[in-house]
Amino acid sequence: MPEFLTLLPPDEARALLLAHLSDVIPDSESIDASSSVGRVLAQDVIAPHPLPEFQRSTVDGYAARAIDTHGASDSLPAYLNLIGEVPMGDAPSFEVGTGQCSLIHTGGMVPNGADAVVMLEYTQPVQRTEIEVFRAVANGENVIRVGEDVSQGQTVLTKGTLLRPAEIGGLMALGIIKVNVVRKIRAGLISTGDEVIDPSQSPRPGQVRDINSFTLGALVEKSGGFAKFYGIVSDQFDAVKETAARALSECDVVIITAGSSASTRDMTADIIRSLGEPGVLVHGINTRPGKPTILGVCDGKAVIGLPGNPVSALVNGYLFVVPVIEKLLGVLTKPRATVPAKLTVNLPSQAGREDWWPVRLIPETQSDEAMKTPSLRDSVVSKVEFLAEPIFGKSNLIFTLASADGLIRIHPDATGLSAGETVEVYFL
Amino acid sequence: MPEFLTLLPPDEARALLLAHLSDVIPDSESIDASSSVGRVLAQDVIAPHPLPEFQRSTVDGYAARAIDTHGASDSLPAYLNLIGEVPMGDAPSFEVGTGQCSLIHTGGMVPNGADAVVMLEYTQPVQRTEIEVFRAVANGENVIRVGEDVSQGQTVLTKGTLLRPAEIGGLMALGIIKVNVVRKIRAGLISTGDEVIDPSQSPRPGQVRDINSFTLGALVEKSGGFAKFYGIVSDQFDAVKETAARALSECDVVIITAGSSASTRDMTADIIRSLGEPGVLVHGINTRPGKPTILGVCDGKAVIGLPGNPVSALVNGYLFVVPVIEKLLGVLTKPRATVPAKLTVNLPSQAGREDWWPVRLIPETQSDEAMKTPSLRDSVVSKVEFLAEPIFGKSNLIFTLASADGLIRIHPDATGLSAGETVEVYFL
Repeated sequence: MPEFLTLLPPDEARALLLAHLSDVIPDSESIDASSSVGRVLAQDVIAPHPLPEFQRSTVDGYAARAIDTHGASDSLPAYLNLIGEVPMGDAPSFEVGTGQCSLIHTGGMVPNGADAVVMLEYTQPVQRTEIEVFRAVANGENVIRVGEDVSQGQTVLTKGTLLRPAEIGGLMALGIIKVNVVRKIRAGLISTGDEVIDPSQSPRPGQVRDINSFTLGALVEKSGGFAKFYGIVSDQFDAVKETAARALSECDVVIITAGSSASTRDMTADIIRSLGEPGVLVHGINTRPGKPTILGVCDGKAVIGLPGNPVSALVNGYLFVVPVIEKLLGVLTKPRATVPAKLTVNLPSQAGREDWWPVRLIPETQSDEAMKTPSLRDSVVSKVEFLAEPIFGKSNLIFTLASADGLIRIHPDATGLSAGETVEVYFL
Repeated sequence: MPEFLTLLPPDEARALLLAHLSDVIPDSESIDASSSVGRVLAQDVIAPHPLPEFQRSTVDGYAARAIDTHGASDSLPAYLNLIGEVPMGDAPSFEVGTGQCSLIHTGGMVPNGADAVVMLEYTQPVQRTEIEVFRAVANGENVIRVGEDVSQGQTVLTKGTLLRPAEIGGLMALGIIKVNVVRKIRAGLISTGDEVIDPSQSPRPGQVRDINSFTLGALVEKSGGFAKFYGIVSDQFDAVKETAARALSECDVVIITAGSSASTRDMTADIIRSLGEPGVLVHGINTRPGKPTILGVCDGKAVIGLPGNPVSALVNGYLFVVPVIEKLLGVLTKPRATVPAKLTVNLPSQAGREDWWPVRLIPETQSDEAMKTPSLRDSVVSKVEFLAEPIFGKSNLIFTLASADGLIRIHPDATGLSAGETVEVYFL
C-alpha cells in the first residue's frame, strides 16, 4: 500500500500548512464592544484620552499637601484645617492650600493644591473644621495620577488581541463602545461516504449517521469560526469535487471528511489536487489517530481532508483545523493550559509516531477538597492531584472521546509512557 | 474601622455561599443538538439503540471465518473463495460460508457467517474468485461488534455534562438531534456610584465610565449565564434596594458593584440584609484584591456585593460569581487547566491572606519553537517553558488586567513567592 509515501510528524505538517497561508486578516466588522467577548481585534486600539482623566483618591480620607504632614506621629500629630468635602462625580469647587485638607472618598477627584490623601484611620477630628493627622504621607500617596493606567495616544490593545472580560472593561473605560473585530472565519464542512446519512434519519443496515460535520462544526464555532454545512456527498469524484469547489469559493477553509477506505481517501487527495495550486502538501501524518489526514492549500485557502473515523477526525480537527482558524483570525496565540496528572498505566507507542490518547481525570486523594473549590484550585506550586486514566477504544467509537476529559500526547521520540509518570492533559 | 469583623478565607467563604444555594437545576429548554456546544445537559441521555447497530469492518480487506485462516503464513497461505463485495451503506445480500470470503471496505457491514476481516495487505488475488491469505486472524479481529461503543439502554451522558464537540458527535450518532439543556443562568448586574456614567457618555471631571457591568457581564456570558443589565444606580439606599429587589425577582443571582468607599460598601450589606433571609453570609474576605467582597443569600438566591474597583470586581467575579453560576447550572466541574511558569521576581504577601496577582507569560527560551505549534505544545511531561512576570498596578487600573495573560495565587499559608519558583497561571 504505497499511499503514504512520506508520513510527516504533525508539528512539521502543521508548520508546512500554516506557512502556505497568507497572513492577511480577512475583512473586519464593527460590533458592540459589550458583545465582543471571544472575538479578535482587527486593529490596534489607541487611548483617546488618559485614564484616569483626573487625579483620584484610592482611599477614604483627607486630601492635603504631603509636606504639611511631614513628621506627623501619634505623639506629635499634624493639624489641618478642614475646608470641605469632595462630592462624588463632580469636581471640587475649592482648592486645598497650605495647612488645609478636604474630606475625600475612594474614587473622588483630588482637589487642586492637594497632592496626597491621608487615610481616615490615621486621622481624628478635633473640631468641626480641624483634624489631627498621626502619620505622614508622601507626595502622590493614595492617589492615582492622571494617565497612570494609560496615557493619551497610547496603544492599549493590539491587533490580534482576543477580547476577554478585562479587555472589554478597558474599552468601556475609554468610551469605546464599538469595536472592529475580525469577521468569523468561514469553514466549509463536507462529509462524504455512501454509507453516511443525516442524523435526523433512521439508518438502514449498513448505514451510519453523520457525526463529523457536527463535531467539527462545534469545534469550528468554539474556535472563532462559522461552520457552513455542505451536507453529505456520495463517494463520486465529480460530486465531491463540485461541492468542494463551491465551498472553496464561499469559505476561508474547507474540511472534507473522507469515507474510511483507502480509495475514498485517495479520492480526497485527487480532488484537492484538482482544486488549485499547490494542492496536496501533506498526504499522511505520523500520528495516531489520524494517519490518513491530508493537508492541502488551493489558491491560498486551506483544504483539509480528515479521516472518516469520528475520533480521528475530531482529534485531527484540534491538531490542524483550530490552528488554521487561529492563523486566519490573526489571533495572538497563547500556550494551551493543561492539567498535570499521573498516568495510571503504561502506554506503549511506536517510536517516531506521535500518539494522542483520550484520558479521564480522576481526583487522586483529597477529592472532596478538589471539588470544594471548583473554580480555582490550590496553586502555590505545581502539584499533581489527578490521575489520568487512558480510555481504550477503537477510533471509530465516538463515545471514547465523549467520556474523556482530555487528551495526552506521546511525543514521537518516546516509545511510550510509564504508569506514574506526570502527563499534561489538554482539555477537549 | 470595624467594618470587617471577620475576614473569611476565600475558599471557606465560597463554600459557605454555595452551601446555602439549593441544588435544584432551573428549568430546561429543548434546543438543536448541533447548536448546543457549551450548554449543560438537563437530563441523562440513554442510548435508544446500540452503537454500532451492525458489525462493521475497521479495515479494507476480506470478511471471512477466522477458523479458515488458522495456520496461514507466507510460505503456507490459506485459500478462500471470493463470493462478492460488501456494498457501502447497504446490507450484503449474501452469507459467507466455510472457505469463503467477501471483499469489504472500512466501515462496511460484516456479512452473516463471517467473524473477522483479513487486511488487504496480507492477501493476494489468485484468480477472479480466489485469494491467498498470508496471516491468520482471530475471531472478531478488525471488526467492531454491535454495541461495542454503547449498548442499547446505556446511560451515555449524564445530567450536568458540559456539551463539547465530542458529546455532540455522540448525540448525532444516536440520532438525538434535540437535547434538553439547562437554561442559561440569569445574572442581574447593578452598578452603583454617583460618579459612574454609561460608557457611551463623556465624563465630566470627577466622573468615570461604568466598567464593572461589562467585565462581569462578559464573564457571566462566558460562564454559561445570561447577563441582565440593571444600569447605574445612584448611591441612595432606596434606589439601590428597589433595583436590587427587582433584579432578585427576575434573576437567579444578583451582583451589585458598590461604590468604592466604606459607606457605600456598608450600604450594599444593609441592602442584602433587607432583601431576604439569611441575608449577609460573609462581609469581607481575606484576599487581595477583593477584601470588601460581600456574599449573601436572600430567600435562596445569591446576592454578591463586589468592590467598585474594576480589578477587584473582576478577579472576585472569577472567584465567586463563576462558581455560583456553575453550581446553578449543575455542571459537573472539572479542575481548571493552568500553564506552569517560572516567577520572575519575589512577590511578598501577608500571611493569612490569599493574593491573586495578574501576570504576563513570556516564552522562556525557544520562543520560536513555542510559537510554531500554537495549538498543542510539547507535553510528554510537565515542562516549564514560560516566565510569569507580575504586573504591578493599583486595583483601580483595568489595563493591568487587560495586559495580563492570567492570575497566580499566593496561598494564605505562604508569606510570598520567590523568584524562580514554579507557579500555575490561570488564564483570565
